[in-house]
Amino acid sequence: MTEPTTHPAILTIAGSDSSGGAGIQADLKTFAAHGCYGTSAITALTAQNTTGVQDVLPSPPEFLQKQVTSVLSDINIKAIKTGMLFDGNNVRAAISALKSHYSNSSDVTGNIPPLVCDPVCVSTSGHTLLDPSAIDVIIEELFPLAVLVTPNKAEAELILSRRQSSAATSRSIESLEDMLLAAEDLLCLASKAVLLKGGHLTVSAEDVSRVASSYPNLEIVRDGIIPNGENMEILKVNSSLAGAQLVVDVLHEILANGQKKTTILCRPRIESTNTHGTGCTLSAAIAAELALGFTLTNAVRRAVQYTYRGIATANSAIGHGHGPLNHFHSMREIVVPKITPTNPYPLTTLLIRRSARVWKAYVEHEFVKLLGKGTLPQKNFIHFIKQDYLYLKYYGRAYALLAAKSNSFPAIDSATQIVLNVLREVNTHETFCASFGITKDELARTPESPATAAYGGYLIDVALRGDATLLLMALLSCLLGYGEVGLWLEKNAKPGNGGWVILQGNPYLRWIEDYAGENYQRAVALGLETIEARATMDPPSLSRFAEWYAVWERCTELEKGFWDMAMNLS
Amino acid sequence: MTEPTTHPAILTIAGSDSSGGAGIQADLKTFAAHGCYGTSAITALTAQNTTGVQDVLPSPPEFLQKQVTSVLSDINIKAIKTGMLFDGNNVRAAISALKSHYSNSSDVTGNIPPLVCDPVCVSTSGHTLLDPSAIDVIIEELFPLAVLVTPNKAEAELILSRRQSSAATSRSIESLEDMLLAAEDLLCLASKAVLLKGGHLTVSAEDVSRVASSYPNLEIVRDGIIPNGENMEILKVNSSLAGAQLVVDVLHEILANGQKKTTILCRPRIESTNTHGTGCTLSAAIAAELALGFTLTNAVRRAVQYTYRGIATANSAIGHGHGPLNHFHSMREIVVPKITPTNPYPLTTLLIRRSARVWKAYVEHEFVKLLGKGTLPQKNFIHFIKQDYLYLKYYGRAYALLAAKSNSFPAIDSATQIVLNVLREVNTHETFCASFGITKDELARTPESPATAAYGGYLIDVALRGDATLLLMALLSCLLGYGEVGLWLEKNAKPGNGGWVILQGNPYLRWIEDYAGENYQRAVALGLETIEARATMDPPSLSRFAEWYAVWERCTELEKGFWDMAMNLS
Repeated sequence: MTEPTTHPAILTIAGSDSSGGAGIQADLKTFAAHGCYGTSAITALTAQNTTGVQDVLPSPPEFLQKQVTSVLSDINIKAIKTGMLFDGNNVRAAISALKSHYSNSSDVTGNIPPLVCDPVCVSTSGHTLLDPSAIDVIIEELFPLAVLVTPNKAEAELILSRRQSSAATSRSIESLEDMLLAAEDLLCLASKAVLLKGGHLTVSAEDVSRVASSYPNLEIVRDGIIPNGENMEILKVNSSLAGAQLVVDVLHEILANGQKKTTILCRPRIESTNTHGTGCTLSAAIAAELALGFTLTNAVRRAVQYTYRGIATANSAIGHGHGPLNHFHSMREIVVPKITPTNPYPLTTLLIRRSARVWKAYVEHEFVKLLGKGTLPQKNFIHFIKQDYLYLKYYGRAYALLAAKSNSFPAIDSATQIVLNVLREVNTHETFCASFGITKDELARTPESPATAAYGGYLIDVALRGDATLLLMALLSCLLGYGEVGLWLEKNAKPGNGGWVILQGNPYLRWIEDYAGENYQRAVALGLETIEARATMDPPSLSRFAEWYAVWERCTELEKGFWDMAMNLS
Repeated sequence: MTEPTTHPAILTIAGSDSSGGAGIQADLKTFAAHGCYGTSAITALTAQNTTGVQDVLPSPPEFLQKQVTSVLSDINIKAIKTGMLFDGNNVRAAISALKSHYSNSSDVTGNIPPLVCDPVCVSTSGHTLLDPSAIDVIIEELFPLAVLVTPNKAEAELILSRRQSSAATSRSIESLEDMLLAAEDLLCLASKAVLLKGGHLTVSAEDVSRVASSYPNLEIVRDGIIPNGENMEILKVNSSLAGAQLVVDVLHEILANGQKKTTILCRPRIESTNTHGTGCTLSAAIAAELALGFTLTNAVRRAVQYTYRGIATANSAIGHGHGPLNHFHSMREIVVPKITPTNPYPLTTLLIRRSARVWKAYVEHEFVKLLGKGTLPQKNFIHFIKQDYLYLKYYGRAYALLAAKSNSFPAIDSATQIVLNVLREVNTHETFCASFGITKDELARTPESPATAAYGGYLIDVALRGDATLLLMALLSCLLGYGEVGLWLEKNAKPGNGGWVILQGNPYLRWIEDYAGENYQRAVALGLETIEARATMDPPSLSRFAEWYAVWERCTELEKGFWDMAMNLS
């Protein structure tokens, strides 16, 4: 449940599926969905789609070997999976490349990263993907390097049939008990662990209970099944999975202490044709979970769940046969881009760019221009400054509510400091007004304009109904806008930059200096940082961003309305 | 900015890069990051890593053709990109497969989905990836099918040199002006549009201004650059991109009305070695944006931005040479899985599973068991019911706050209905208490237990500081837990299910029936739906889910504490 900080690299050695649902394509998609970096060595090309395999073209063994060597010699690989290997020569080529890279010690298995071997023999559509003679090479030479072998029913039967005494008939796996026996026999061939996949068998809850009572050490993992005794009656009653048929995989492994452990992984069978590439996806997901540092048992549990959800959420509109899984069900697109050196304020940039029209109407308001030129009639400024004085009461209260909604001492402190700043700003307003001959008493008796009431009321509304972040969005427009206006006027006071702003003798010089000044700009920089940090720490969903944006845009409109009011004396 | 509802399929016809940063691997990663489904036809295998191309093995033309045909014959392709094609035979094979599939009309370009042609000639590391004789085939046969051709400097020079009159010397592109001229000349060869990529040239802001004044119809797109006049002084001051060197691409296109349009796309140059596969990624991203339905200009703008961010956020730890881009910067892992038929309540299941220990301590509390058996001493039940009565005041107030925090009439209605239900439940409690001889007056005079105050105060705290969703999390534990207990007791009253619960003659029968009953269970089902809908509509980030979980777990503990209090008479 933690977001991976690194992106471990993984190598898949497998075939290419032109239709993108299986082979290295499925592997790369799966690695990516796990936050891993995927590399690939292609054993064979296929011309393939969801209805079947139209043709296969094996890679020459020496070229397969070159691909593996190119990857290993440059990139630090944390896990490997093998899929379709096509023939014995390619199995040997892959092994040779692995061994020559990881052979610093005599024991290659000590150096090689976790290798998951998916012994692909036959495609879902029935196409032979492995030369029968290659099976022995895989068993004898590749199995010993693998931490896990993941055959399905047909592959397990094939492997076991080839390794049985000559007199034995071919092995058949038809029940959960057969699966458990087969897993044991397979573990004699695989060195560390076997996952026998049960997708081609249907098992009932009764089968699981029966087996559970005969094998007391069996661990049972259920996904999408609420077992008795877990006290989730409430979920059971509200869903309807009671009599579902199950799919069960059997994981049989040798633990570090030499003991054997069996886990059966159950889930309700999903009626779906979106199963193309299920085996590839599962073994790739296991490799990814191992690369991320999970134990084998946990890696398998998590990978089974991932694959299962890939089937459950698949898009049935791709292809006319057995369609692909949804490999990216576990990810979604972000709304606010990540902070980078060239985009240090992605959230704020997005808010301003999207609201460009109203933002411009606010910060380039006629009121601001006249103020900059020093030609704003005094009565308009006085009306503004009186209403701004009343507005500051709401603004201060909103920051007090922010303090009340904060969950950490630093956050309570920072909001409280702003309340104190607002109170100081009130003093400045009083002094300012005094210079225009307005007494403190007259200020206090000024009736509230509708624009002031609308804006103030909205701030308090957001403060009461939203969380601290939403309130920050409401407070941002005022904070940024006045900072923007201060800088804009200052810039345009310079001869080279148009120079329409007059500072000398401007009756509102003090106001311009206040907002362009270091103190206010420091507060703006802090506000920017705070809001960007929120979006980074708690990236909003599309719907939450829409809520943030609506509040920002509304406040920007209310700011514009505030200056309209000053111009209209309304 | 809308989440794509479909996942359009795209075909890439290109080489395979074993190291995963370029070729079809980069293309598939890019398609996935755009929510598109990727398919691929491999023109050549490479043994390649971040330091260079060690070897290339072309696919036989007939096998390339088979791959394209397999994909097109089965999957509805919404966009195509071509990358490295290796030689003239493979160019012809690809075109032949496209033409034979899309030739229902005489005008193949009328049927073919948008095709982006990246005329890959040379790798970043300097390896020749296209037989020189193939360039003419690409120009003459592939360009006419493409909606866009995307050469870099070297490729543009090569293409233009081959097409110039025999006497001309080779063409060189060294300035932004050269780029604009080259784009015009290239458009004479490409049928619809050219994107001349400027990654190998360094341009200054002055160059852009100069060109802007000579070409009045030029559209200038800036990413990570705040132009004058946009009134974002505040962001300019707080970032430090003033004197940055720029990278500029030139898009020159023929619009539907026959007019030509030029767009230049600028961004600050990033000093990065993570540029392996930049060209592949960009053309793949353009194809993806086209498949999603964006216009060519917008597709290019978005794709340039995506690619740029891929470089800016790249993980420099992969490989020893020119490392890959970060293809998945625009996505992140989700915390709560999607709703599926076999997992209808993913959020609630996650909450209960994670808090299994405390959840069990709550719903299987000794108090509950004794109540079920009918052996709970009356004094404990009376203590409980009196405190529960006091608790309901907080509970009702919390729902009133939920109504106050709701943003839609249905949400206000549903919260208000629950307030009314709580008031009815108060009546039930009064009647219940009367049956134990407790007057309404005595109930009202009951002092609040610390457990009641702790729980009630916590509810009001969450209600005041969080948003409506966080409050729903706080209210969920009580709602679900009592429903769970009701069903659990009812189930265990049946002989087959253990049968330790006694209904007949149980003094608390009415209590059990109330919570197992249809009315209460309907409220639970509604609560489940509401909370799951929130998580679906507004999927939480990791940090937001952690906040949700903390509130859920805390309330579950407080529920357990409530029954502890009943048992201790505390």
